[in-house]
Amino acid sequence: MSHPVSGLGEFALIRRLAARLGPARRDVVVGIGDDVAAVEVRADRYLLMTCDAQVEGVHFLPGVTPPERVGRKAAAVNLSDIAAAGGRPTHFLVSLLLPPDTAVEWMEAAYDGIAHEAALFGADVVGGNVARAGQLALDLTLLGEVERDRIVRRAGARPGDLVLVTGSPGMARAGLALLKQPAPGLADEERRRLVDAYQLPVPRIREARAMGDVGGVTAMIDVSDGLAADLGHICDESGVGLRLLARSLPVDEGMGRLARSLGVDPLEWVLGGGDDYELALTARPGRAEALQRAVHDATGTPLTVIGEIVPREAGRHLVLDGGQEVPLTVAGWEHFGAGHP
Amino acid sequence: MSHPVSGLGEFALIRRLAARLGPARRDVVVGIGDDVAAVEVRADRYLLMTCDAQVEGVHFLPGVTPPERVGRKAAAVNLSDIAAAGGRPTHFLVSLLLPPDTAVEWMEAAYDGIAHEAALFGADVVGGNVARAGQLALDLTLLGEVERDRIVRRAGARPGDLVLVTGSPGMARAGLALLKQPAPGLADEERRRLVDAYQLPVPRIREARAMGDVGGVTAMIDVSDGLAADLGHICDESGVGLRLLARSLPVDEGMGRLARSLGVDPLEWVLGGGDDYELALTARPGRAEALQRAVHDATGTPLTVIGEIVPREAGRHLVLDGGQEVPLTVAGWEHFGAGHP
Repeated sequence: MSHPVSGLGEFALIRRLAARLGPARRDVVVGIGDDVAAVEVRADRYLLMTCDAQVEGVHFLPGVTPPERVGRKAAAVNLSDIAAAGGRPTHFLVSLLLPPDTAVEWMEAAYDGIAHEAALFGADVVGGNVARAGQLALDLTLLGEVERDRIVRRAGARPGDLVLVTGSPGMARAGLALLKQPAPGLADEERRRLVDAYQLPVPRIREARAMGDVGGVTAMIDVSDGLAADLGHICDESGVGLRLLARSLPVDEGMGRLARSLGVDPLEWVLGGGDDYELALTARPGRAEALQRAVHDATGTPLTVIGEIVPREAGRHLVLDGGQEVPLTVAGWEHFGAGHP
Repeated sequence: MSHPVSGLGEFALIRRLAARLGPARRDVVVGIGDDVAAVEVRADRYLLMTCDAQVEGVHFLPGVTPPERVGRKAAAVNLSDIAAAGGRPTHFLVSLLLPPDTAVEWMEAAYDGIAHEAALFGADVVGGNVARAGQLALDLTLLGEVERDRIVRRAGARPGDLVLVTGSPGMARAGLALLKQPAPGLADEERRRLVDAYQLPVPRIREARAMGDVGGVTAMIDVSDGLAADLGHICDESGVGLRLLARSLPVDEGMGRLARSLGVDPLEWVLGGGDDYELALTARPGRAEALQRAVHDATGTPLTVIGEIVPREAGRHLVLDGGQEVPLTVAGWEHFGAGHP
């Protein structure tokens, strides 16, 4: 049986959710239940902060995505932002916007998902807020820290740098397609792998930390809007141009097969898919191999060289297999645009 | 003319909103536009964090409250939480949940309100997020800091402590009543004062800092749910009971007149009103006068002794003017409850 949160009341709900968390880290001086959370901070680090929301009907469909996965993804997309800065996540605040008829059981499972994903990467849920709303949303804030000499921003790419990406962007787009339409030719295992890429993205915290040990990363971003769009953000902030090599782009085999069966060029999903939460980065050319080896040794995740940074005047191009250069125009997902689901 | 945010796109909207902010504080290493915000932190302080949302149709009505006031209140309710911990606010993250047809002009005015209120108390907007949603919400996270020996929690009240409150709780409830029904007997000036109490609550940062200079505050909370409910939270967390004196409760004259004209006992609004964002606190009896003087000298805000903390076994009572003690049962506003608008 399912109970609406309106029958529980705000304070009882907070108590019930907070009871699902384990003991807090030692640096948490004040945790859930007070007006604020308080933590001890160290002076040799920068404090990082980011926030990102998962909204019902926009980022997830309540009947389609299990609540535990909604919670895990809500945490993962924030963890991914901390990864892109080279940092370590520390403390989550969970702001819940809840329609009164939200099932308590749904909410508890989503909260478990947040706590589970946070724990996987050493972060704690220390506070939050509950507000009544007409539309369900999990709006998370994540704090993190990074050593002062290790912070990576979007604005550090220079001509001559190589462009790299973790994993295989486009798989999340394939998973979304599978949730919207059946693909009879696909094996269950293949289907699950692609749907997981969309519903359970793995924040690349460990990969980014391994890269920080090596050094040489000049700019980094996580792929949320799409590889082309997010590399465009690095170019915007760094004042540089970009040459991507089509033949170097990693194309997951199952994703490619599904795309072609739907009449889509797989590169369209690789470059424009979004929601992958892979890391796209630029690095000094002499460091690329060491970075690839370190990421592989620490995590098994592939790190692929896909192009190079060029002067701004040279523009942004994709080099096709025949050597022809076409302007890189694949648009990322602008959340208010009309062209994307 | 009014432009929907859907015509602008997410990045253009963020750029437009960020352009409205002034230059960042020196401790902001990375500000708006990157994946995360990064700030320098000091080791002799605790870092404080809180979040609170203002949701359209729940916390404000779009046609009734001007957007600049919606933004100011969204910031103020978070500032109020930092005040309750004795801290100073430092950095805001602004998470916007926006229906595509939200007018850009409305959003800009609301954002100006956030930035204005933040600046009044020395805090900066350093980042945030924009997500598409069906219902408009401003979900703000606020970081702050407090000297280690100055942090005040809910859990420090002891029998023998005096109970005090800043300002005149209940005025916000009167302001809300005025927005819902006309009160022909009320002067414009009086009406504006009460509506302002509801729409533009003043976070008691300066009052709390002045109290911190004196010392002796043992527990503190901001009055968001209602004075009785919020003092109840202090009693819960501290494991103590409470005796409030009806004749000591501050009753704003205009508020009292309006309540009586609507057939309401003014004490009902003082004890149960909510949304006041005054500070309710407990203090060692020997410090009360010094606290009152310090708050008055620094801010002009009255700080009134309204009762005392008693052992838990003595319960929670209101002492009426004739000396009769009645159980303090006035319920605060539980956001999912049915009894409150």
